[in-house]
Amino acid sequence: MSNAKAYSAASATAPLAPDNIPRRTATENDVKIDILFCGICHSDLHQVRDEWNSVMPTTYPCVPGHEIVGRVIDVGSQVTKVKPGDLVGVGCMVDSDQACPSCDKHVEQFCSNATFTYNSPDKHSTAPVTYGGYSESIVVDEHFVLQVPDNLELAGVAPLLCAGITTYSPIRRWGDIKGKKVGVVGLGGLGHMGVKFAKAFGAHVAVFTTSPSKKEDALRLGADEVIISTDPVQMKAHAASFHFILDTVAAEHDVNAYLQMLGLDGNMTLVGAPETPLQVSAFALLFGRKSLAGSLIGGIKETQEMLDFCGKHNITADVEVIPIQQVNEAYERMVKSDVKYRFSIDMASLKQG
Amino acid sequence: MSNAKAYSAASATAPLAPDNIPRRTATENDVKIDILFCGICHSDLHQVRDEWNSVMPTTYPCVPGHEIVGRVIDVGSQVTKVKPGDLVGVGCMVDSDQACPSCDKHVEQFCSNATFTYNSPDKHSTAPVTYGGYSESIVVDEHFVLQVPDNLELAGVAPLLCAGITTYSPIRRWGDIKGKKVGVVGLGGLGHMGVKFAKAFGAHVAVFTTSPSKKEDALRLGADEVIISTDPVQMKAHAASFHFILDTVAAEHDVNAYLQMLGLDGNMTLVGAPETPLQVSAFALLFGRKSLAGSLIGGIKETQEMLDFCGKHNITADVEVIPIQQVNEAYERMVKSDVKYRFSIDMASLKQG
Repeated sequence: MSNAKAYSAASATAPLAPDNIPRRTATENDVKIDILFCGICHSDLHQVRDEWNSVMPTTYPCVPGHEIVGRVIDVGSQVTKVKPGDLVGVGCMVDSDQACPSCDKHVEQFCSNATFTYNSPDKHSTAPVTYGGYSESIVVDEHFVLQVPDNLELAGVAPLLCAGITTYSPIRRWGDIKGKKVGVVGLGGLGHMGVKFAKAFGAHVAVFTTSPSKKEDALRLGADEVIISTDPVQMKAHAASFHFILDTVAAEHDVNAYLQMLGLDGNMTLVGAPETPLQVSAFALLFGRKSLAGSLIGGIKETQEMLDFCGKHNITADVEVIPIQQVNEAYERMVKSDVKYRFSIDMASLKQG
Repeated sequence: MSNAKAYSAASATAPLAPDNIPRRTATENDVKIDILFCGICHSDLHQVRDEWNSVMPTTYPCVPGHEIVGRVIDVGSQVTKVKPGDLVGVGCMVDSDQACPSCDKHVEQFCSNATFTYNSPDKHSTAPVTYGGYSESIVVDEHFVLQVPDNLELAGVAPLLCAGITTYSPIRRWGDIKGKKVGVVGLGGLGHMGVKFAKAFGAHVAVFTTSPSKKEDALRLGADEVIISTDPVQMKAHAASFHFILDTVAAEHDVNAYLQMLGLDGNMTLVGAPETPLQVSAFALLFGRKSLAGSLIGGIKETQEMLDFCGKHNITADVEVIPIQQVNEAYERMVKSDVKYRFSIDMASLKQG
């Protein structure tokens, strides 16, 4: 066991602050990673503040962070996937039973014995729960370590490990969208990745937003058009014309308005999770035989595919790089959606701090 | 033009009563049908009582009925599909523009110019609106006339034209369900047809019901098992195990309980339409990548396919045959779900009355 510098929250109301956490010595299947960048996901904030208490109560101290990119500094004797010096990533999971139907189907995120990157019971008993990427290093089973293409800007790679795979997976799974009209609802951390992926797959991409000020940026990110969702005239003009819509909004919103944008047999997939139930009109689904689906991150195999795709198409997240000393301020700005489009923590700042 | 005996409602609060209605003389593309049986669909009651006022207000007098089976008695000069003496059916639609993308894709039910069998503006101007099947005869464009296999009991064929196609279409479209676990929520007019079709397609069929008294009947209809949805132990035992669920319940109900029954990538399709919005948990969709869809009757081509399938597999609805003089009593019983599983009006009673 060794100690690692980290930032943790001591309670639901405490700010994140410097801490020292234990990291296990690499077992034979483990990879030890020197963390270079860690993205800030909205989930980090929910977990740190215990806002998911009813389903996933937080154990303190809590070290969040599941958008990790770094360099291998040690490997166990049985590790074959990577070697010291390799660029790697770690996303939302660090372990699973690798024996159940979900793992067999490469959807480890649905394994009932999955270990998430932070706030999951630590089966190695290094600590009560797993500690995430707001830390100088992490030790992870090689199956959950992803290879990172070496042509990408690393600060923008980190968010691919959660925001990237979360949006890539449903777009990819929906099938061939080349030349088809695809909508992205919301232009934040998830939405801006959705635009990039849908465009890279050849779709005609429209962004739905409530903020006219986002129009220029949406077009710069690759959108072909922007629809102001509060404007009934614009919405009506696009009614029943979409093949697929990716809904990235986690706040309460009217999904029926977007279901009405879908054409025959169209699908809208949610990747955000509003806390209150969605109010879904049965009529909105019946007329046009539409469907509303959900998608949750992606499996390890698909995450690797996504990273390779990003390498090939030169896709990274648009990030604002911060030192870890600004993480609490970044959280406040994230609550106000004041970030284009993801914060990425330069972990060199932690070593210096 | 000629007169036909019918039963109509004069207002939202009036009972159905004998009436005489105009029927147009068959044009060159028309088929005139002597109606033998007409099923009673819950939609008939909603329309007659103007319960859909906000979306489809009722014009009076209203002659409902869109589960029609009869015999051809006259055809226009250009009709090639059927000839006098043929057994035929008419469902929810009697016309569409046959020129739009929906019609091109054989989903005339989504044509924005579709003419429904009753309470739709009558483009022939025979009457302000179309009059349905609670009548001794009807005149319909040949495209909307279905051929009925001659090996089936006709009283039970009538409900196939709405309840049959409504359940056949989503089951058929969901793909190969042979050997897979398929659920049917609700065992009424729609649900009992869903059981028969899912079984005929080779699925392992489970019925979800709140009524233990329906168990024996569900098994008789072909279900492999019955799950009492109010029993948490039974529900838990089947969690995450279904490939597809057909939800036929039109009353308010907890869809999340059924979404939790679906396995990875499972789908639940609604064919009933509760008036109040469904309360859908985003988490119920995200975990397991599930989808909730809607389906609305079916197109003419698929309706013919369904009837041919019924002929081959000897499938009809389970009906209680009544004379039309008992229609108001039947409505009261339908409201209480006191029918196994569909009323079918023997239209000979109208001619005698």
